[in-house]
Amino acid sequence: MQIETIGIVGLGLMGGSLSLGLQQYSNRFRFIGLDHNPKHTQEALELGIVDEIVETLEDLKECDIIILTVPVDGIIALSQEFGVVNPMCTIIDFGSTKAKISNAIPATLRPNFVTAHPMTGTEKFGPLAAFATLYQNKVVVVCDIQMSGSHQQSIAKTLFEMLEMRVIYMDAFEHDRHAAYISHMPHALSYALANAVMKQEDVQSILALAGGGFRDMSRIAKSSPHMWEDIFRQNRTNMIEAIESFEQELKKCRIMVENQEWEKLNLWMQEANRLHDIL
Amino acid sequence: MQIETIGIVGLGLMGGSLSLGLQQYSNRFRFIGLDHNPKHTQEALELGIVDEIVETLEDLKECDIIILTVPVDGIIALSQEFGVVNPMCTIIDFGSTKAKISNAIPATLRPNFVTAHPMTGTEKFGPLAAFATLYQNKVVVVCDIQMSGSHQQSIAKTLFEMLEMRVIYMDAFEHDRHAAYISHMPHALSYALANAVMKQEDVQSILALAGGGFRDMSRIAKSSPHMWEDIFRQNRTNMIEAIESFEQELKKCRIMVENQEWEKLNLWMQEANRLHDIL
Repeated sequence: MQIETIGIVGLGLMGGSLSLGLQQYSNRFRFIGLDHNPKHTQEALELGIVDEIVETLEDLKECDIIILTVPVDGIIALSQEFGVVNPMCTIIDFGSTKAKISNAIPATLRPNFVTAHPMTGTEKFGPLAAFATLYQNKVVVVCDIQMSGSHQQSIAKTLFEMLEMRVIYMDAFEHDRHAAYISHMPHALSYALANAVMKQEDVQSILALAGGGFRDMSRIAKSSPHMWEDIFRQNRTNMIEAIESFEQELKKCRIMVENQEWEKLNLWMQEANRLHDIL
Repeated sequence: MQIETIGIVGLGLMGGSLSLGLQQYSNRFRFIGLDHNPKHTQEALELGIVDEIVETLEDLKECDIIILTVPVDGIIALSQEFGVVNPMCTIIDFGSTKAKISNAIPATLRPNFVTAHPMTGTEKFGPLAAFATLYQNKVVVVCDIQMSGSHQQSIAKTLFEMLEMRVIYMDAFEHDRHAAYISHMPHALSYALANAVMKQEDVQSILALAGGGFRDMSRIAKSSPHMWEDIFRQNRTNMIEAIESFEQELKKCRIMVENQEWEKLNLWMQEANRLHDIL
């Protein structure tokens, strides 16, 4: 299973870290980058993330693997632009939503595609945020794998093994429902927490007291609006359901505090503690 | 300013880390511990957190400093039990709420007391969770300092300097309002998030996808219900206000998603991003 050239569309945290991670595994790959942001292409060259920059999608078509690490609406747009590719070419997208992407890929291109979601990232973005161990020991969810060609299935598996990732297979709809609860809705909470605090009159005095709890809970409120607007849009129905489900729990808490139902509140906190046993 | 003996009531994460931190600064202190949990007193002796265990509050009265690191309701109860102490004795409580404690201290004892809130901690508890650097470079809020004796003010300042903490002075009511936003309400969110996810049918499949964002946001949902029930009770009014203020922000987000107001959602996320500039 030989991989020689890897095209990366989107030279940010995800695309950059992919290259740096694979370079730790082997020095035999050639990385070719595409990004509309000239600052990012320059940085990616300087950081050794790519060996070469190209200008169009067409220029990547001879790559063994093409990785799409752009926001999810961009992935759908790119999937419409590819046209015909080499039957041996493997295109892997790293989008955080999967159903709309999986369904949008043109039928002729579907075997070439592997739709995956690596459950990792940071609140930072751009090539300077990239680091070699971003993917190490992390989960990657591969969706609707039966729609990918057998060659592409093997290539993706090999790639994720090189990165030392744990692969989970899942239906794209199931993925999106789960991701809403475990990733997308928590981002909404973090943005809402940051805004609730910053709306206070004495925000500076409040933030002066920030300890580890607040820092951890507000970290992902620094994430890219461009990337997350797309995700909220593509996973809209599941997002609404997950937010409502959270709202119910928080309302329950507020009412117990209002009604001074302390024993009940303690039990509710004990329920939450059970997370400790399973995560 | 000589300090020789330090009594610690409550040999958990906070009390244990205090001793370990001060031992890094100097080996001249003698630590005397009090805790109703025999497992914790045993562990504290074994870990070198204390040199001696005593059975009653009376046995600590000759200490230069007595630190109260028990849940906030326990601090109020202890403040009623002290009776008369040496005028040079400094009692410092580390409670996460301050107004009810500051007001509950008997007038005769008030000059002896310094009410403080170190803005640090982890979700873990007990002496085994203690570590020497818990307080290092962290903020400690000292409340209603004008009610403490001048000797006690100096002793507290010296102690926090030894621990390399940054001291902020604040009115207890102001502290409680700020702490509700920056610490107490975020704990409610984390508990609610954990419960919202664990209520789902396919909780195992959802949690299998947990990345750094969810881990960070749910970490403090593992915190002690005993400790946090007390805090929610003592800071009830501010808690309700802070939760409502968060609920409004999250509702705003949900409605933008429902109404597909993506540009507005993007701006709302950009607002949250501003946190990056100030924290």
